Amino acid sequence: MRGTANSMAFFLGLDVGTTGSKSTIFDAAGRKLSSAYCEYRLYHRAPYLSELNPAEVWSAIRKVIRESIKKSGAFGVCPSDIRAVCTSVLGEAFLPVDKNGTPLCWSMTTVDARAVEQTKWWEKNFAPGEIYKITGQPLSSSMPIYTLQKIQWIREHKKSIYAKTWKFLCWEDYVNYKLTGVPVIDYSLASRTMMFDIRKSEWSAEILETAGIDSAMLPEVRPSGFVVGEVKNSAQKETGLLHGTPVVAGGHDHACGALGAGITREGSLMDATGTVECYGAVNKRLGLTPTDAMRKKGYAVHSYVIEGKYFTFGFNPTGGAVLRWFRDNLASEEREEAKKSGADVYDIIISKASASPAGAKNLFLLPYFEGSGTPNWSRSVRGAIIGLTLSHTKNDIARAILEGLCCELRWNIDVMENNGFSIGDIRAIGGGAKSGFWLQMKADVTGKKVLVPETKMETTALGAAILASKGIGFYGDVNEAVKRMSRVKERYHAKPEVSKRYNEVYGRYIRLHPLIKNFF
Amino acid sequence: MRGTANSMAFFLGLDVGTTGSKSTIFDAAGRKLSSAYCEYRLYHRAPYLSELNPAEVWSAIRKVIRESIKKSGAFGVCPSDIRAVCTSVLGEAFLPVDKNGTPLCWSMTTVDARAVEQTKWWEKNFAPGEIYKITGQPLSSSMPIYTLQKIQWIREHKKSIYAKTWKFLCWEDYVNYKLTGVPVIDYSLASRTMMFDIRKSEWSAEILETAGIDSAMLPEVRPSGFVVGEVKNSAQKETGLLHGTPVVAGGHDHACGALGAGITREGSLMDATGTVECYGAVNKRLGLTPTDAMRKKGYAVHSYVIEGKYFTFGFNPTGGAVLRWFRDNLASEEREEAKKSGADVYDIIISKASASPAGAKNLFLLPYFEGSGTPNWSRSVRGAIIGLTLSHTKNDIARAILEGLCCELRWNIDVMENNGFSIGDIRAIGGGAKSGFWLQMKADVTGKKVLVPETKMETTALGAAILASKGIGFYGDVNEAVKRMSRVKERYHAKPEVSKRYNEVYGRYIRLHPLIKNFF
Repeated sequence: MRGTANSMAFFLGLDVGTTGSKSTIFDAAGRKLSSAYCEYRLYHRAPYLSELNPAEVWSAIRKVIRESIKKSGAFGVCPSDIRAVCTSVLGEAFLPVDKNGTPLCWSMTTVDARAVEQTKWWEKNFAPGEIYKITGQPLSSSMPIYTLQKIQWIREHKKSIYAKTWKFLCWEDYVNYKLTGVPVIDYSLASRTMMFDIRKSEWSAEILETAGIDSAMLPEVRPSGFVVGEVKNSAQKETGLLHGTPVVAGGHDHACGALGAGITREGSLMDATGTVECYGAVNKRLGLTPTDAMRKKGYAVHSYVIEGKYFTFGFNPTGGAVLRWFRDNLASEEREEAKKSGADVYDIIISKASASPAGAKNLFLLPYFEGSGTPNWSRSVRGAIIGLTLSHTKNDIARAILEGLCCELRWNIDVMENNGFSIGDIRAIGGGAKSGFWLQMKADVTGKKVLVPETKMETTALGAAILASKGIGFYGDVNEAVKRMSRVKERYHAKPEVSKRYNEVYGRYIRLHPLIKNFF
Repeated sequence: MRGTANSMAFFLGLDVGTTGSKSTIFDAAGRKLSSAYCEYRLYHRAPYLSELNPAEVWSAIRKVIRESIKKSGAFGVCPSDIRAVCTSVLGEAFLPVDKNGTPLCWSMTTVDARAVEQTKWWEKNFAPGEIYKITGQPLSSSMPIYTLQKIQWIREHKKSIYAKTWKFLCWEDYVNYKLTGVPVIDYSLASRTMMFDIRKSEWSAEILETAGIDSAMLPEVRPSGFVVGEVKNSAQKETGLLHGTPVVAGGHDHACGALGAGITREGSLMDATGTVECYGAVNKRLGLTPTDAMRKKGYAVHSYVIEGKYFTFGFNPTGGAVLRWFRDNLASEEREEAKKSGADVYDIIISKASASPAGAKNLFLLPYFEGSGTPNWSRSVRGAIIGLTLSHTKNDIARAILEGLCCELRWNIDVMENNGFSIGDIRAIGGGAKSGFWLQMKADVTGKKVLVPETKMETTALGAAILASKGIGFYGDVNEAVKRMSRVKERYHAKPEVSKRYNEVYGRYIRLHPLIKNFF
């Protein structure tokens, strides 16, 4: 514990994800004090369905808040020292709730594919380019992910639920409602519904009118950092948060992650490597981004968690997922070794990958195990390992995985730069930011500096905590809050001779997607 | 032992290969009595070099003949019961020997790549189509495999060796010379030198004149089954074969394998699956085969081991080699399991492959780990695994290997049939013929009957033994000898519903080579 005047100021960042929630308490310098995590099940009760059970999720949220507070007590922190609470959440997933705030069914998540017909309807009746200009979201019937069409699906297929619905709430607004009684969503998360006008910062009248959805059925929209209300008595009982604690509007998890990584302006690219690998860049000039070129490549543009700024967002659907696939399917020796030595199996795999030379002896791995993301948007393309000879070993395959992921990162940077973005450095967060070897490879392949914040694992919760501190005016503004709470800890610079080799590798790599995509 | 009149008639088939030699003694019904194997080293003393040490090879040959005879003694067989000896050998490899028959240097083998310039010279100065019409061998400077250009290389780079050379002998003629004092090569092996006129059944005057090679420097050429001479006194001492035992001209190993598999006429395809997978079909109508279409696809046409017939020969450079690569690189669990249970590791791998459904969940493996063979001749293309998703397991990869190899087999059949060949059934021999699952897959993918001879492992030696028996007139003619000595033991018939699925798989598979070949 620091002995400063702020030592008794703490902020709780709640991160509600697809498969679990985590509550983390940070001090005013952004240092993690305590955290608690609780997993829940993502249900696939039938093909195309992907749902969360709201009772289970809310129970997990209560539990992790309570536990994180309890753990912080060991450091002498009282609930009254927690100055504010703020939430970062998964996008798209939502709940219809009745007048008492009771969920009327389970929560459809991003990959729930029921709303194909509704998405096709929009594709046909409302030019995707027009929707993109308003909402920043690329519409594609091959990806029926957005809240808007899912609400329409409920109206068409679950009439009685629709009739009873008071509001459709995403998980941020639901949490805010449960804590304060006021259902508020922030701009960044609202952007992910495909109903939000990112230029006007309000629900899009045009979209809602076309959809026939009354805006009264949606939550209020406020900028991130807006104080939603105070923790209610009933919420104190449920969570252990003190009655009266301010609750601040948070944001979409990736935007919160970018903020936690210290990104407040154009110039840095967030690179969050978990199961999925996400790329995000902040910019002020909206004109840059919702262009047809960017839409066709699959980039989404959100309002950022800093008012007046935007967040352009790309992704690779299988980032760390490919490494996990390798671990589970091809690395029985390494799993055994990890069990015996107590080492992390990924450390062992990556150390073996490092035994293969740059370029993995001309082996290429295309990580499209669930389709390709930005900038080569395709749901149907599949993964491949290309260039195999009898002299290749498992180490070369492991290295080719990392190199493939790094080439995808560079490809995104190239396209963003060609579309007017300026990217000076990469801020790496998430599980992939644990490996120095991989981070150095990211620098070598992209030619960019790679910076890793001190908080590289709970970065989205830190982003929420930053918004909490800013929200209650603990810091003068968000830039100051970021400066005080987020610090770069590691720096990786491209090595020219390795970069030169990777320029060749990348030049060949980018020829492969066009070659194989039509096969699928 | 049978109690027939022929019970004391035995034939020794010697198989001289790239990495070892095997001597097998068969009775007059083609049943194996005894065999002995001895490995030797294939030397790669520098890049591009691939050589055998003749002293080591001859020592191994002496040893295996002696051992097989000794083992047969346990069954009451005397050396005098061995009625004739005959050899099947690897192609292309040769030795310059002096007047005393002493090798003047090591033996350059097929993949020794020193004669690139000499091969290019022929490509430029003698149309490959013309060479093909004469010799049946497809010339390509990317594959400097033939004896002709290697002899030229020696003339240009090893002048003193060339000056001392009495004859250039392939391994059949060398063995015949060592046993009888007479260096005789048969038509089928002579075909592999690129100096033999397969229409005229003699060394090609045109080729030799162009090359400036005196035919006196080559061995005599005789049809397979011709009695070369008798085992000399000195050879008796070395090998244990009785002085006076007839030595019969044998053949190229694949042609001997086809004969051992019972192929005497058009209608069957030999499918020999070892490290390399070789396909061979017999036909009488020479006009069919040395066409430019077949040349460009990489097929070679040899004189067959039956006079007046031809053997068209295709291959996949990495047959079983891909399965071995899988075993050595991705199957540590299976290796461990085999060690514990004593089971064959390939049986375990193939049993796991059988747990994946037909089509391996839309996973494709292109077995071009050392380039593609016939009919998609390319040295530069490389292997690939295409269609990977997170749901694929190692079992699917194992199955995709077998399916890829089966698709290559079918592709060869399709091309041969489109070029006038009639292929009613497949005769499977070699290590790959041990697996019932794989054999059934070959039937299902090709839609052809797959027949496996009783002798599926020493099939080339059996072919030589058949020629031995025919040579000394033990049987009336080669057809009778084959009928008596080679029997089909297993039969696999295509299952219509599985074949239907594989038609789709194959239809997609053949789209992949054209897609990726230009990448390399």
